Amino acid sequence: MIDHLSTTFAALSDPTRRAILARLAMGETSVKELAEPFSISAPSITKHLKVLERAGLITRSRDAQWRPCRLEAAPLLAVSDWIENYRRFWEHRMNRLDDYLSTLEIKEARKHARKRKP
Amino acid sequence: MIDHLSTTFAALSDPTRRAILARLAMGETSVKELAEPFSISAPSITKHLKVLERAGLITRSRDAQWRPCRLEAAPLLAVSDWIENYRRFWEHRMNRLDDYLSTLEIKEARKHARKRKP
Repeated sequence: MIDHLSTTFAALSDPTRRAILARLAMGETSVKELAEPFSISAPSITKHLKVLERAGLITRSRDAQWRPCRLEAAPLLAVSDWIENYRRFWEHRMNRLDDYLSTLEIKEARKHARKRKP
Repeated sequence: MIDHLSTTFAALSDPTRRAILARLAMGETSVKELAEPFSISAPSITKHLKVLERAGLITRSRDAQWRPCRLEAAPLLAVSDWIENYRRFWEHRMNRLDDYLSTLEIKEARKHARKRKP
């Protein structure tokens, strides 16, 4: 059985699917409207929507005739929680890079100061 | 050509690969050490490492004989930036849920208050 997070990441590994999510973050919309900005066929869009639906990233209303698509927050929150575990790691890495660059700048400034001495 | 973010998400869509990253967040390590906690073959681990390496999530040193693996920050930062765009969306959604639950609680409290009246 594939875990939820793996299904979510797999669903996010396509630029068209991410563009669909970006559009849905602005509000519910029909499949027809969703397909308009893309130069791909309606069956392709439907295929992408099915992947997003299986991952729980979108839901489609059964009530209305036009079956609007809606973005769901829970899987995005799970991704955010997962990546948050690595924040300390990259902040530490970035700080070390900053320290290194500062050391280089100090060295460079000293070199120039020595050159300027009579 | 597949974009960087898609390659990163595809690499993250596997629990073994995510476990490898979690281990590497604690420090550099050899492939042998990495493989120990997993009940899968060395060639399988090597295959997973190649996927992570192609996504830029890890690098392997060419210097040392034991070629240590090292976690890289940049692709994780890109994922964090991407998910950050949706923060406003899910916070708004969660606030609406909170409002709804508060309304339910108020209704429930009123119902009980009416029942208690003589």
